[in-house]
Amino acid sequence: MSESAAHPSTPITGPTDSGDAFGDLAFDVFAKRCPSRTALENITGRWGVLVLAALKDGPYRFNALRRRVDGVSEKMLSQTLHALERDGLVIRDVQQQIPPRVEYRLTPLGADTAGKLLDLVGLLEGRMDEVLAARSAYDAARG
Amino acid sequence: MSESAAHPSTPITGPTDSGDAFGDLAFDVFAKRCPSRTALENITGRWGVLVLAALKDGPYRFNALRRRVDGVSEKMLSQTLHALERDGLVIRDVQQQIPPRVEYRLTPLGADTAGKLLDLVGLLEGRMDEVLAARSAYDAARG
Repeated sequence: MSESAAHPSTPITGPTDSGDAFGDLAFDVFAKRCPSRTALENITGRWGVLVLAALKDGPYRFNALRRRVDGVSEKMLSQTLHALERDGLVIRDVQQQIPPRVEYRLTPLGADTAGKLLDLVGLLEGRMDEVLAARSAYDAARG
Repeated sequence: MSESAAHPSTPITGPTDSGDAFGDLAFDVFAKRCPSRTALENITGRWGVLVLAALKDGPYRFNALRRRVDGVSEKMLSQTLHALERDGLVIRDVQQQIPPRVEYRLTPLGADTAGKLLDLVGLLEGRMDEVLAARSAYDAARG
């Protein structure tokens, strides 16, 4: 069992066990030391959004996921998957066969999170005309 | 008017005018050169989420916003606001008085985007017990 200060080995049942100054307060991403801040950063990081959104389609093997998330390096995809696995959003599923088959899939929490992210992505993709018009106007005013 | 290749000065009315290889295709954040990818990164970047979520409460002056988004530096807040302003999510509103009063507020697109982000934040804050339990289990298995 890990005994590190950051991740006590005692069962964690809620905010009061988070081991810092949050006590009875609810989790709050606006507070820089709240553990929800790092969880939010893992989800909304450069690659976290795209990995979660991709896995909403179903399980992926590493290389297929890397092709789906266009532009991600092997190292960054590996780091992103580890962070999401540690936060309970992604499961690394090793199927016992020769050679072993490894797939990544969402947990129920990961699927709910990915659903919210896809809502955001859908909104953005559907209104990129507004974004591009704003960029043109902004750049023209400063050109 | 700016004539840079990245941001043509011609009016942009949709994906076909985005000036790259996207042609008639819909915007797709999974494609690394799609302009929706950078817009997504600005929204979901380390500080973009928190700035948009904060501004959903109403307009903020710079220093008040900096206090609300606990931990952000002056430089990072300034960069984040510029990127969100350029993408049409935030308006920098200069009120003519002495001294001038500058406030930041959301556009309609910014408010819709912030709504989706708050859905995500609410889900995460409400299920941090699952995240913390997963972190403990992950660290214990590797301790």
